[in-house]
Amino acid sequence: MEIKVHDRILEANIRIAERNRELFKRKGITVLNLIGGPGAGKTALLEASIPLLLRRFKVGVIEGDIYTSRDSERILALGVPVVQINTKGACHLDGNMVESVLSDLPLDELDIILIENVGNLVCPAEFDVGEDAKIVVMSVADGDDKPQKYPLIFRLAKALVITKSDMLELAGIDLDRLKDDALSVNPKLEIFLTSARKREGLGGWVDFVTGMTTGRT
Amino acid sequence: MEIKVHDRILEANIRIAERNRELFKRKGITVLNLIGGPGAGKTALLEASIPLLLRRFKVGVIEGDIYTSRDSERILALGVPVVQINTKGACHLDGNMVESVLSDLPLDELDIILIENVGNLVCPAEFDVGEDAKIVVMSVADGDDKPQKYPLIFRLAKALVITKSDMLELAGIDLDRLKDDALSVNPKLEIFLTSARKREGLGGWVDFVTGMTTGRT
Repeated sequence: MEIKVHDRILEANIRIAERNRELFKRKGITVLNLIGGPGAGKTALLEASIPLLLRRFKVGVIEGDIYTSRDSERILALGVPVVQINTKGACHLDGNMVESVLSDLPLDELDIILIENVGNLVCPAEFDVGEDAKIVVMSVADGDDKPQKYPLIFRLAKALVITKSDMLELAGIDLDRLKDDALSVNPKLEIFLTSARKREGLGGWVDFVTGMTTGRT
Repeated sequence: MEIKVHDRILEANIRIAERNRELFKRKGITVLNLIGGPGAGKTALLEASIPLLLRRFKVGVIEGDIYTSRDSERILALGVPVVQINTKGACHLDGNMVESVLSDLPLDELDIILIENVGNLVCPAEFDVGEDAKIVVMSVADGDDKPQKYPLIFRLAKALVITKSDMLELAGIDLDRLKDDALSVNPKLEIFLTSARKREGLGGWVDFVTGMTTGRT
């Protein structure tokens, strides 16, 4: 029974997500759904990337969090429109939650919406919210065994952003193994190694977002 | 409706968890449920702690994972009984999953069962599996804002094990803020700062497990 209910919830979610997707398409907005565990560095990646994207695009942010609005306060400091979704305990964003806050964003002005999902590498992967692409985010400190252990998100994502490259040496992970494992789960995955703190490796990632937005990717 | 079904699932789970708890009590086994996000260092903590616990106790391990058995292979190398639960997509262990593997452990011989939950800081907190205590595990690389953002697990846990202390300087987190935030969510939380790699800070944590096992804590 649990599984049937779960399937019905997922089906209802897909309908709402498709409605979001049509709206985003009509408004010409590219939407990326950033998914990663707690502490993967999703907010720091946004903080480092948004100023680069703003040179060319209008960017809005949807921040998903279970209770606090700490992340959206960090994003507000960048001077971009941001709306907070507090899931009140729920482990992922869904299409309905995203739909419910869209009227709080200036959709007619935006080129890109970056969605930061709840810190969770598992559940958010199952819930389409109407995005153009899922982006999986993990840090070098998370270890090199994540693609095989959490394959769904690596399979569904269009890009993997590996964060905190400034900790690479100390983390002692096998970066080639991580990349090979990720590509064995998803051969088309684009992989970027970044450090938000050192502002390194962001160019390729920003080019990827730019390509998604201008329709080149 | 989603919420009602969720409540019914949780209620059914509590009944099974209580059955597990009674069995553990009858057998005189202390059971700890380790919960943390992907890459928090749960397996490495087990690898470093179990040899110390084995000086005095018989230890068994239940490894929860979505698909792979990589972690249980690491634990097997320590020469302790280990059973693997693959949740096949599910984001947490529940009472039923744990019950279903107990016959594969030598319960009459064990003093301690350490359960490594699925890598997820959110969902496993909701599902009692019959443990004596939940232990929340996070690394210094995860940042200092986790207790407020994921309060449920910090509220329910008896101890917080902060891992990867060898990366503390590079991670640049405010350890006092982390501890204060954790204690503001749960004033009784015991906090241990450890490095599995450097084999540092394990004494306090092992003493805590020892106290739980001998009934002093």
